[in-house]
Amino acid sequence: MSECILNALPLTDAERAAFQAAAPGVEQRFAPLMDNSGLTVPLSDPALAEGATVVLGNLPAAVLGASPTLKWLQTWSAGVDAYLKPGALPDGAMLTSAVGAYGPSVAEHMFAAMLTLMKRLHRYRDRQHAHRWADLGTVKSPVGATVLVAGAGDIGTTFARMCHALGAYTIGLKSTVCPPPDGLDEVHTLDELDQWLPQADVVALALPQAPETVHIMDRRRLFLMKKGSILLNGGRGSAIDPEGLNEVLSAGRLWGAALDVTEPEPLPADSPLWDQPDLLLTPHVAGGLHMESTRERIVAIALENLKRYLAGEPLKNRMK
Amino acid sequence: MSECILNALPLTDAERAAFQAAAPGVEQRFAPLMDNSGLTVPLSDPALAEGATVVLGNLPAAVLGASPTLKWLQTWSAGVDAYLKPGALPDGAMLTSAVGAYGPSVAEHMFAAMLTLMKRLHRYRDRQHAHRWADLGTVKSPVGATVLVAGAGDIGTTFARMCHALGAYTIGLKSTVCPPPDGLDEVHTLDELDQWLPQADVVALALPQAPETVHIMDRRRLFLMKKGSILLNGGRGSAIDPEGLNEVLSAGRLWGAALDVTEPEPLPADSPLWDQPDLLLTPHVAGGLHMESTRERIVAIALENLKRYLAGEPLKNRMK
Repeated sequence: MSECILNALPLTDAERAAFQAAAPGVEQRFAPLMDNSGLTVPLSDPALAEGATVVLGNLPAAVLGASPTLKWLQTWSAGVDAYLKPGALPDGAMLTSAVGAYGPSVAEHMFAAMLTLMKRLHRYRDRQHAHRWADLGTVKSPVGATVLVAGAGDIGTTFARMCHALGAYTIGLKSTVCPPPDGLDEVHTLDELDQWLPQADVVALALPQAPETVHIMDRRRLFLMKKGSILLNGGRGSAIDPEGLNEVLSAGRLWGAALDVTEPEPLPADSPLWDQPDLLLTPHVAGGLHMESTRERIVAIALENLKRYLAGEPLKNRMK
Repeated sequence: MSECILNALPLTDAERAAFQAAAPGVEQRFAPLMDNSGLTVPLSDPALAEGATVVLGNLPAAVLGASPTLKWLQTWSAGVDAYLKPGALPDGAMLTSAVGAYGPSVAEHMFAAMLTLMKRLHRYRDRQHAHRWADLGTVKSPVGATVLVAGAGDIGTTFARMCHALGAYTIGLKSTVCPPPDGLDEVHTLDELDQWLPQADVVALALPQAPETVHIMDRRRLFLMKKGSILLNGGRGSAIDPEGLNEVLSAGRLWGAALDVTEPEPLPADSPLWDQPDLLLTPHVAGGLHMESTRERIVAIALENLKRYLAGEPLKNRMK
């Protein structure tokens, strides 16, 4: 059977030419399904998907599952839950993700939020609105700080590397222990969380959604954190009990916290968290396509995999 | 003549013991002249300064200039302008500063402010007050950004090193050119400023006060900056023309700006700069003793110099 590619990635002209050059003589239909904000748009003409053996981009599972020809789907997302459900893809079709593309974006956001809190720039911003020139006292530094990263995968490790480069001591926690990668001084298993929480100046959560991570930072663990420490969440909102967080912040136990993800999302307008002065809130914007280089990384992963696919080599980021 | 030390530094017990151990058999009077906020307090008893051959700390020039015994002053400040004026110190007295102690504090502040702007955390903070969960669009990254540091001394070089560690390309401008130190990709002379301004994604000012740096960023140069770039000032407020800055910000030319220093200081309550949405203002707090490690660095410089002084070796940070 000859190949037919539906390329739904948002591409520059040069990138489009690179995909054409990678698949000479192969039919390749270009139909970007993502707008400039990174939002998915519907396929203009369902016929574009007909006969495709390869799909690059997050086409709806309802379209893909019924395809008699699909052999491989490359997503632009890191998560592929929707395509792992029974019937979402034809039997035997391969699935690869864009895991690794989003790490820098989310990690940089978490790192920026940590420094904002350390230097109290959020509180100075508040004073700026009042036209107040007034010193807020001492600040914190990443130099010599112990940074605990719960969830030392792509995002967590990238975040740790930045902290390490600025002089922090970094400890990663993950489900299975491994030799510390570049940027992590130590790696332990996640079940040692209680032991490390009281020692960390910064606790950074980059955990995936899973039964064992829901409310992993419950009230008890939030109060186990070192006095004057910082809590960051760039993973899933469900990792933190919001009531416990409000309580520990109101008690003045923490230096501050920064959440890009909340439970639920969007955070309800009447949540008391909005008004916690040392909580910095962003509306789940650390990832997505907020950074141009994220799109470039997705495109690079897809192009590399297309070359491998056509050469009959094993694909990267294989999820199924 | 036997030595007599007036030690006016704010010290921990262990540090005090280290100073005593460094000068066995020498009279050393401990009278900290700095409170916990880093503010200078007056000498409780003027007799403490009488007969001192060595003073560690910023005693008023009025007290020191008239001293018949003073042979060496070690300041806790980086700037020593007040002690370079005629009559401020006795003839022949040596003067050493704490230059180098403040670099990490100011550089970290500038770096944090840059990342806050890049990720628009200042604008998200504003939305947080309105309980608004709403995406503000694309963000910037230090990766691949060209960072121009005008004033590549202690602070500027430390700042550049942090940017470099996160993936930026760094260019330093200083009065005399030198081989690039660690963290700077290129070093040029300050008179090339006009040529580099249109190429930089970030322009960071860490310039000392001097006739040639007053309003170095005038209206013309502010409009020479690349569209969508970032301006930071952690040096002296006089480096930027405030009216020109207000104009270039109102014109939407810049991504944002962050000032820790202004002209004048404090910034008048009726300055239009307070209300520029993409200007982040802090009230000259990047340096001082806001970071505990700054105090430790000052103490380390003074202790090292005391050992050198008593051993008859050349002093570090010699200013006179």
